[in-house]
Amino acid sequence: MFSPRPIGHVRSLYKTTSEIPKGLGAKHDAEGLLEILPEFETGLTDIEGFSHLIVLWVFDRAGGFDLIGTPPSDNRPHGVFATRSPRRPNPIGLTVVELLSRDGRNLRVRGVDMLDGTPILDLKPYLSSISEEKLRRGWLAEAEARRK
Amino acid sequence: MFSPRPIGHVRSLYKTTSEIPKGLGAKHDAEGLLEILPEFETGLTDIEGFSHLIVLWVFDRAGGFDLIGTPPSDNRPHGVFATRSPRRPNPIGLTVVELLSRDGRNLRVRGVDMLDGTPILDLKPYLSSISEEKLRRGWLAEAEARRK
Repeated sequence: MFSPRPIGHVRSLYKTTSEIPKGLGAKHDAEGLLEILPEFETGLTDIEGFSHLIVLWVFDRAGGFDLIGTPPSDNRPHGVFATRSPRRPNPIGLTVVELLSRDGRNLRVRGVDMLDGTPILDLKPYLSSISEEKLRRGWLAEAEARRK
Repeated sequence: MFSPRPIGHVRSLYKTTSEIPKGLGAKHDAEGLLEILPEFETGLTDIEGFSHLIVLWVFDRAGGFDLIGTPPSDNRPHGVFATRSPRRPNPIGLTVVELLSRDGRNLRVRGVDMLDGTPILDLKPYLSSISEEKLRRGWLAEAEARRK
């Protein structure tokens, strides 16, 4: 395997998990900063041409994992790999953000749902989408339908 | 940080990286198996309701990283965070696969671009897409345009 190291940190307005919008219909349009460490700045070359980035990061304030859990978007339990729960065997979070601007090694982005200070593991360009017609959203679509 | 551990392994027909389609227009419709370890099977509960999964995995046969590299899809160099290069500071790969069927702890999927035996770190449901109109694909769109 490998030893994870931060390539940078998230700057966001969220200081505690309770401040982050969760559950059905939660909107993630908060702006924030991805502060990349100086030694990795060269790796950002040409990143400003992409409108959306995939951010991989560490749930550094979650401890341990549960194989089954009840997410904030449902009142029924589901397997951890069918949810975005922070309590995962490998505590890696994934967020798709919109890249608003770049200032040197700082990326201003929209769509932040991470806590302030969250370690960033990786950035990747978001390249393609699954069309709406082809996408099935399992228990989440069912939970949304039940709430209507 | 945390110590990455495999939650399972990829079974694919690709034994060497040279067999994996790369570059512009590469199609990833190969089928393969995600073999989840017995101790994590419970975490798959309800996963069959999702049409697409995000697989996080380890580039376990890549060593070291380059901040700048020339990807197979272009003849110009780009920053590692603007590419999907395996030579990354944290060697984590990401593949979106279509879930075809589940047999216990084995998931049959389409869209595999990993080597046989690749360690899997995490599975997450694929929940939403960026619409075609909103997505800009940076140097990759330019490289495609130049080839025409």
